[in-house]
Amino acid sequence: MRKISLLVVGTVAFDAVETPHGKVARMLGGAATYAAVAASYFAPVRLVAVVGDDFTARDHSIFRGRPIDTQGLERVPGRSFFWSGKYTPDMNDRTTLDTQLNVLAEFDPKLPEAYRDSPFVFLGNIQPSLQHRVLRQLRRKPRLVAMDTMNYWIEGALSDLRALLRQVHVLVINDAEARQLSGRHNLVQAAARIQAMGPKAVVIKRGEHGATLFRGHQVFSAPGMPLHHVCDPTGAGDSFAGGFIGYLAGQGLTPSNGHLDIAALRRAVIYGSVMGSFCCEKFGVDRFRTLTREEIEARYREFQDCTEF
Amino acid sequence: MRKISLLVVGTVAFDAVETPHGKVARMLGGAATYAAVAASYFAPVRLVAVVGDDFTARDHSIFRGRPIDTQGLERVPGRSFFWSGKYTPDMNDRTTLDTQLNVLAEFDPKLPEAYRDSPFVFLGNIQPSLQHRVLRQLRRKPRLVAMDTMNYWIEGALSDLRALLRQVHVLVINDAEARQLSGRHNLVQAAARIQAMGPKAVVIKRGEHGATLFRGHQVFSAPGMPLHHVCDPTGAGDSFAGGFIGYLAGQGLTPSNGHLDIAALRRAVIYGSVMGSFCCEKFGVDRFRTLTREEIEARYREFQDCTEF
Repeated sequence: MRKISLLVVGTVAFDAVETPHGKVARMLGGAATYAAVAASYFAPVRLVAVVGDDFTARDHSIFRGRPIDTQGLERVPGRSFFWSGKYTPDMNDRTTLDTQLNVLAEFDPKLPEAYRDSPFVFLGNIQPSLQHRVLRQLRRKPRLVAMDTMNYWIEGALSDLRALLRQVHVLVINDAEARQLSGRHNLVQAAARIQAMGPKAVVIKRGEHGATLFRGHQVFSAPGMPLHHVCDPTGAGDSFAGGFIGYLAGQGLTPSNGHLDIAALRRAVIYGSVMGSFCCEKFGVDRFRTLTREEIEARYREFQDCTEF
Repeated sequence: MRKISLLVVGTVAFDAVETPHGKVARMLGGAATYAAVAASYFAPVRLVAVVGDDFTARDHSIFRGRPIDTQGLERVPGRSFFWSGKYTPDMNDRTTLDTQLNVLAEFDPKLPEAYRDSPFVFLGNIQPSLQHRVLRQLRRKPRLVAMDTMNYWIEGALSDLRALLRQVHVLVINDAEARQLSGRHNLVQAAARIQAMGPKAVVIKRGEHGATLFRGHQVFSAPGMPLHHVCDPTGAGDSFAGGFIGYLAGQGLTPSNGHLDIAALRRAVIYGSVMGSFCCEKFGVDRFRTLTREEIEARYREFQDCTEF
């Protein structure tokens, strides 16, 4: 059986981060990088993003040896998107110190011909109008579209975002964003309001506290994996999204009769949590350089063990 | 079989609270009230606390019709302990506006003779030296002692607290307190340090995010029950503790060979979470005025449904 491909669009970037465990002046990052790498453990990935001429062969090596098609990774003159941030001592919050759009400012995602039949799509956090443009380039309606967004677009591009939400099946956002988008503090109410905007399912990420899935009246809560050592939470949310949608794509699971299979969604939330938890163990994407599918399965079982009663 | 009794010591108080859902100028509260009422659904409770002469028969009615022995509820001239606080809009945090110790300032817990054989003990949050004094009045070593404490005692009575910790089996505290007591931000490390202080098990309450149990290298995480409406979180942590230890007492479960049965502890964490979640649905203890054991079992099954994968 031919494996079902997942299209991932978003940022490939360089980050500078400071956590209580150290400071890294320049590391590979970006939502699409984390999501693509995490998803690639489960399904073949097709990447769409833009980088500048500061993106080297060594940077590119994170995608090599994985089922990640990078013909949609555009290279243009200039510098890659850059983000810099500092985490609070408990790493539950962070301050953005610097954001340089650089080549992202002119990004116009172009899907290679071979990508246009992608049945699974993850729209990482970029401008909603660009996320929309990706969907319009698909030759046929994808089976499953999931997306992420952020406070910046909720504040500044709400009508584009609302139009896009009508076309996606799953919204994967964090708790603060869910509250902001819905205007509700209570997350059950927030999820219901967001589902009324279009998505049949909403996954609310809560950092170290886990993630909660809402689909209709069904709710599934996964705790955060209690980790002995958290080095750097950067990218954990994007790795979660990659693991989540990657797992669904790998299973070939699809919305049938307009519904998403709740058992598969639950497992997908756990695989997302597994990938997010690994991401935190080292700076940037470093943990994924050595991570094996066997370690992923072992942690999935740890999740079972730490939640069963 | 004679049901095994649980001794609960702590505060019985009046609270004034303001939440986004309203303001109550005076309602019955206090750690021992919540813990005793929550525990009484699972096991007979023996209450030790002090109230002033402002504590009326109507206030006392919360204990009536339940298996709660109140001969240890001392009445002295003066006013009962009073606490006043205001919650943040998302109800994850609160500001203490006023604390009046009143009759609590002179509290010297005295165990009625009939209480001195209690095999299960919950030491609610009061001065560690008073918690200690309760233990010393027991005729024989209890089977299981659980306790709570707070930042005030961690800062101001640490050596008393450390001495007490050597005599308890389970510490039930919130995440901020666990971090403060252990000096570790990471909760896995915090729990390990606290276990090294004496308790064989540590339950870390995380408000709406759930609770995590640590016993040796074993970890169990329960998510918060996603509630459609949270009215007032006051007492939820104490109701959690009451449900937790009450369930263990009701089962007659004991540390065997110095260990606590992990499967029972997991179920106890869920029953604790159930009781905490009900507590939030109305102001103060009001939800418990109508709560039935059937509703408790139904919510336990909801917890199963929302965590199974």
